Amino acid sequence: MHKSIVLLPGDGIGPEVVESAKCILDAVASACDHSFDYATHAIGGAAIDQFNDPLPQETEAACKQADAVLLGAVGGPKWDQNPSHLRPEKGLLRIRKSLGLYANLRPVQGFPELLHASPLKYDVVNGSDLLIVRELTGGLYFGEPSERRDNGESVVDTLAYTREEMERIIETGFDAAMVRKKHLTSVDKANVLESSKMWREIVEEKAKDYPEVTVEHVLVDAAAMKLITNPTQFDVMVTENMFGDILSDEASVLTGSLGMLPSASLRKDGFGLYEPAHGSAPDIAGQGIANPLATMLSAAMLLRYSFDMDHEAQLIEQAVANTLSAGYHTADLHVKNGTKLGTKEITEKVIDFI
Amino acid sequence: MHKSIVLLPGDGIGPEVVESAKCILDAVASACDHSFDYATHAIGGAAIDQFNDPLPQETEAACKQADAVLLGAVGGPKWDQNPSHLRPEKGLLRIRKSLGLYANLRPVQGFPELLHASPLKYDVVNGSDLLIVRELTGGLYFGEPSERRDNGESVVDTLAYTREEMERIIETGFDAAMVRKKHLTSVDKANVLESSKMWREIVEEKAKDYPEVTVEHVLVDAAAMKLITNPTQFDVMVTENMFGDILSDEASVLTGSLGMLPSASLRKDGFGLYEPAHGSAPDIAGQGIANPLATMLSAAMLLRYSFDMDHEAQLIEQAVANTLSAGYHTADLHVKNGTKLGTKEITEKVIDFI
Ligand SMILES: CC(C)[C@H](C(=O)O)[C@@H](O)C(=O)O
Ligand SMILES: CC(C)[C@H](C(=O)O)[C@@H](O)C(=O)O
Repeated sequence: MHKSIVLLPGDGIGPEVVESAKCILDAVASACDHSFDYATHAIGGAAIDQFNDPLPQETEAACKQADAVLLGAVGGPKWDQNPSHLRPEKGLLRIRKSLGLYANLRPVQGFPELLHASPLKYDVVNGSDLLIVRELTGGLYFGEPSERRDNGESVVDTLAYTREEMERIIETGFDAAMVRKKHLTSVDKANVLESSKMWREIVEEKAKDYPEVTVEHVLVDAAAMKLITNPTQFDVMVTENMFGDILSDEASVLTGSLGMLPSASLRKDGFGLYEPAHGSAPDIAGQGIANPLATMLSAAMLLRYSFDMDHEAQLIEQAVANTLSAGYHTADLHVKNGTKLGTKEITEKVIDFI
Repeated sequence: MHKSIVLLPGDGIGPEVVESAKCILDAVASACDHSFDYATHAIGGAAIDQFNDPLPQETEAACKQADAVLLGAVGGPKWDQNPSHLRPEKGLLRIRKSLGLYANLRPVQGFPELLHASPLKYDVVNGSDLLIVRELTGGLYFGEPSERRDNGESVVDTLAYTREEMERIIETGFDAAMVRKKHLTSVDKANVLESSKMWREIVEEKAKDYPEVTVEHVLVDAAAMKLITNPTQFDVMVTENMFGDILSDEASVLTGSLGMLPSASLRKDGFGLYEPAHGSAPDIAGQGIANPLATMLSAAMLLRYSFDMDHEAQLIEQAVANTLSAGYHTADLHVKNGTKLGTKEITEKVIDFI
């Protein structure tokens, strides 16, 4: 199959990890007789420096024409004092909205070689394997009004959702549960928020269409506790944008493998943007020591969700797992008696395993 | 000194733990030559059953006349299907607002006897001692509009704050840091929310009045991670209502001592409502096995913050700590080689230590 992929390296270690993931995609293409072409475009801080815009028009246009998008990371101290429309993150928020990427999938799983580096006790975290499905283009992130009032004496942000926006992400949650362990945890704050009451009603309605899925409602504060005290109880967790932001980051540190976690931001037709869950790590950028594994696993999600190439996705996932179990790791990972490698070297190891 | 205290036992184990805490307050009163009088009033589910109102007028009026309020817990499955104005939690939300209790203090500390029960590794959690200062009467909890629109096809909630509301809670945060380790972590989502941008500006302004306090800004998603990976880095954390709800519950499970954590909800003049951080535990209500220690520690906070009785507060805190280190505990706590006691028995032990 022929497919075109837009690469958005972004800032910090972004360019290094995206380059690695591209090498992996090429290895898969030649192993499986596909051809991928790539176009690289600017986003985030790099785009601000070059175009004075965190999401230049030509980047947006190129993404709209591609079959999928692979992003590195955005942000860094260099742009932290910029006004908000010239902040790197704004590029990310705008592209999610502009491409309609409403469904953010954030899997959290443990790797046996890394579990010992978890802040949690082995018995608590062992066996954790959950998927957070976060709504990504609604809620407090995009609601209007969001403004100062009374000459700056007060301020409002707006948590707004349409029924349709809730329905489609809740369906994504149920669909994800159906191909996993068929357990869905819906997270809301229905004892306080009107939006959460509506959310809970819609979950109840949709549950009728998925009789095989067991559904549980958990308040967001309780969910934040349970992720720590008993993470293995979760399979798929579905929630709105801000709750998902907080809980997915919380969940990402449970298994000691933050440097290994991918993410996908999808719309209904399968088009998507893929990026590692970690940030741009400006402190180690350009040193050749960044960990590209989460970006490779994001490329695997790209193959699975946007190109329907499940076998090819598994090739990457298996190769990454094999690389780790052979003891190869980057500086950020703690593998006992392992061999520490740089970005390029570990990329070669993964390619060898493909 | 003579003081009057309103007791709001509420639901589940609420009546049992409030009764225990009252015995402790009496023990302190006689040891230190104070006299406390008590009036008991209904709130939550109990008030719904009796008055069809989770916060009856006479309860509200009594609280307004008291010197301080001690609450047990509200809620239970019995009222879970009620319409929202007849839900137990509504009583709690309304009393916070009606009494103007804008500052919620939630200390999280470890007890040496309980740290082994933490889901976190000993080395990660040992030494944790933090205070979450949560805004309690603004933000998404009370903002208008909060309603369905377009014939139920959409919904909004509103995150609203005035400058004054932000200023006073941020001051509470700084003041708390001044009497602790002089480190303040302000939590916001300033890369997305206008309200958070204003929050951050106010923190920066106030910081000038507290040159001794080191101030750090952390995004709420990063805060949710850091609480787990490195809880000992925090001293005082100050944040708005919903973020504080989530983070304080997350923090409450870190040290393995959820059953030991008190809370205070204060206004400027020192008046306050005090309650344990745990819930109403309807499954064990009425069995005489509930853990009253968090409610006793809440009574200690009451003495300190509302009555300015620091010495008396320490008497309780010391007695509770001594009870634990003597090996006495309730069924919910895991103390190695300890002696398991019921609610009444452990109350007597604490009194013996006073
Ligand atoms: C950078 C920021 C705006 C973004 C978000 O809050 O969505 C990030 O935290 C994420 O989770 O992808
Ligand atoms: C019961 C509920 C409304 C309440 C809140 O969210 O404030 C509770 O979770 C708390 O933290 O005191």
